[in-house]
Amino acid sequence: MNPVNVGLLGIGTVGGGTYTVLARNAAEIARRAGRPINITVVADKNPARARELTGGNCQITDDAFAVVNDPTVDVVVELIGGYGVAKELVLQAIENGKHVVTANKALLAVHGNEIFAAAQKKGVTVAFEAAVAGGIPIIKALREGLAANRIEWAAGIINGTTNFILSEMRDKGLPFAEVLKEAQRLGYAEADPTFDIEGVDAAHKATLMASIAFGIPIQFDKAYVEGITKLEAIDIKYAEQLGYRIKLLGIARQREDGVELRVHPTLVPAKRLIANVEGAMNAVLVKGDAVGATLYYGKGAGAEPTASAVIADLVDVARSAAVDPDNRVPHLAFQPDQLRDLPILPIAEAETAAYLRLRVEDKPGVLADITRILADQSISIDAMLQREPEEGEGETDIIILTHRCKEKQTNAAIAKAEALSAVKGKVTRLRLETLQ
Amino acid sequence: MNPVNVGLLGIGTVGGGTYTVLARNAAEIARRAGRPINITVVADKNPARARELTGGNCQITDDAFAVVNDPTVDVVVELIGGYGVAKELVLQAIENGKHVVTANKALLAVHGNEIFAAAQKKGVTVAFEAAVAGGIPIIKALREGLAANRIEWAAGIINGTTNFILSEMRDKGLPFAEVLKEAQRLGYAEADPTFDIEGVDAAHKATLMASIAFGIPIQFDKAYVEGITKLEAIDIKYAEQLGYRIKLLGIARQREDGVELRVHPTLVPAKRLIANVEGAMNAVLVKGDAVGATLYYGKGAGAEPTASAVIADLVDVARSAAVDPDNRVPHLAFQPDQLRDLPILPIAEAETAAYLRLRVEDKPGVLADITRILADQSISIDAMLQREPEEGEGETDIIILTHRCKEKQTNAAIAKAEALSAVKGKVTRLRLETLQ
Repeated sequence: MNPVNVGLLGIGTVGGGTYTVLARNAAEIARRAGRPINITVVADKNPARARELTGGNCQITDDAFAVVNDPTVDVVVELIGGYGVAKELVLQAIENGKHVVTANKALLAVHGNEIFAAAQKKGVTVAFEAAVAGGIPIIKALREGLAANRIEWAAGIINGTTNFILSEMRDKGLPFAEVLKEAQRLGYAEADPTFDIEGVDAAHKATLMASIAFGIPIQFDKAYVEGITKLEAIDIKYAEQLGYRIKLLGIARQREDGVELRVHPTLVPAKRLIANVEGAMNAVLVKGDAVGATLYYGKGAGAEPTASAVIADLVDVARSAAVDPDNRVPHLAFQPDQLRDLPILPIAEAETAAYLRLRVEDKPGVLADITRILADQSISIDAMLQREPEEGEGETDIIILTHRCKEKQTNAAIAKAEALSAVKGKVTRLRLETLQ
Repeated sequence: MNPVNVGLLGIGTVGGGTYTVLARNAAEIARRAGRPINITVVADKNPARARELTGGNCQITDDAFAVVNDPTVDVVVELIGGYGVAKELVLQAIENGKHVVTANKALLAVHGNEIFAAAQKKGVTVAFEAAVAGGIPIIKALREGLAANRIEWAAGIINGTTNFILSEMRDKGLPFAEVLKEAQRLGYAEADPTFDIEGVDAAHKATLMASIAFGIPIQFDKAYVEGITKLEAIDIKYAEQLGYRIKLLGIARQREDGVELRVHPTLVPAKRLIANVEGAMNAVLVKGDAVGATLYYGKGAGAEPTASAVIADLVDVARSAAVDPDNRVPHLAFQPDQLRDLPILPIAEAETAAYLRLRVEDKPGVLADITRILADQSISIDAMLQREPEEGEGETDIIILTHRCKEKQTNAAIAKAEALSAVKGKVTRLRLETLQ
């Protein structure tokens, strides 16, 4: 069969990994795909580096538009990133009838509906396995492997940087700022880590997972996004004492009345497998009505793990290129005319258990006041921990784990508790999921 | 688009689950697949039960051959099991140009090459996601999701019965025979549990994984198969003290000179995620050269988890039915003319670390003799544990963990150690994998 000619846009970390793995495993990949998959042209703003990496084995250009307009290119691999020129290039490639493979979660989370509609119109595929959880084939699992199920929820550690930081904070008892510096030194966090530590990257990925799990349009602007920058080491410690680990989870949950889509630090029972995913590793737990809970674990970033997903998409695209578009796996798992308008719910409507830490005066009646406030909001208490105040300290911490309730109930209780004169400063609230 | 008409052979546990899930999630599945998937006829030796389960919503027969010969049936789902009539039915369905979905690992492990060749010849698909690890989409991950990789090895807990028994033995410190009875009482083990506890079922699945991971023909007869019936509670305890858990793993490893294909109780470092897979759950760890280690976890058996895999295959088959057969995912991941004759190695050539327990006289020089024997076989020692003999006991246990070596070296050392007068009875040998 004819080889597949690939135009590669961007030969940085992931682009370089894709080139290397395709070259190293060329024979093995062709034995699977039934045809060779060749990168015939590479566009990069640094052509000298591109030439060095590819050793003169393919065409090099600094004009990415020349690649998407090249009639000999069958598939465009977009690894430039961002919302700017990447969007123009992807749309131009589609307009030219080319299939696209991309790792660009930001682009798809923000402009995915427009891009998939354009691809649908032209009968081409935009594949994005590498956009979520790097080398873990989670898009394929959700879209195809679990196609029999009503997906109830998916919850994932889908940002390696923040998981590395949380693991280090717990292991070494160090504060966030210090561990962040260490992560930057080791290359686990970027010079500007905002997208990672503020939860934006995880929210991009959770947004894509919610769409393919539940058959709804992509709605990144409706996601609740809370990062780990305000997380204190003391809460990691208290959580540990209560039998929980704190992970930054991207959560998508389907309810009758809507979809919860949220990213925030989350207490998870320490005995769950996902609570034991450490360092920069990723894992996604998916609950389907038929299959029950399934977990997918692996490297969520890095040159070759991400390349693994990019190339798997290339093989898929090569196979489906000759297929009637109506018979291909739909971009968002469900047929385009079968998406639903189930709303994304505001965070106040989300149902979670809560971890509350209150700084209180050490005097009689305080606990009675607080538990009364919770009871008035119909919030029941699952566990409580009161630190023994040190001699003459006069203040202490009370930690309360609540049962599941609507977030607005917890909000109201927090506001009332903060109004008590015996409660000092703000109440620290974290969310807790049992993931059962 | 036209609905897909399915003929279901066998409406027992998995067949019943398949019927139920297809009915319950009919709308959701059709929204994904782009067409309804309908079970139009069911064959079962107990037509009354079949009629009750299906509530008169489809045709019922006790003649499975009538179903595979029915021209209105597009896809046959074989859930009868075993090597006998199931083989005839599958081959007849293929001969009639029908696609087949099956959960029958025994049939495919033993007759898969013949069945896939027949399907290839007729241009139909035989899908078998449900044959390995139940609801976990591991076949799809290996065949498609990791298509970029040279797979180095796959190691899985792929039999829920034995994992349940091992979990209980460890938790409660009970002997095998007692826990087996409990498992039978709870329905986790069958009345005749031989296939499970002797490792045969796991070997069927490992054989299929080896083929699709490495591109070799199916060779169940070359697999090394050792179950858990001889495992003693004391070894689980000693392993724990050394930081390991014992799991029945199905292992397929690719080496330059051949493939290791083996099922046996295996010591695994307790901190690995897979070591913490408890009860009847399954998990498969796969190491690819690009992606690194990825893990897939979920329910490996049961009505609805297995149905989840059967129905995912039905959706895939529906999509690929209109596709030129050359463009479909090959049965064994690699194109049929691209399979290799890399041999399955005999167990003596396998490379593993070992756990050795020796019952010895408590007198000077014994340890020196044993370590000399190991050194003579070029086996180096990783860790050692010697139980303090009780007052007047005169004998004690020595436990040795070796570094990785060929199994024949360990065999030779064991034979020499057993010949020492100070060593009492047989040496207990278990294999150990670090899974890195």
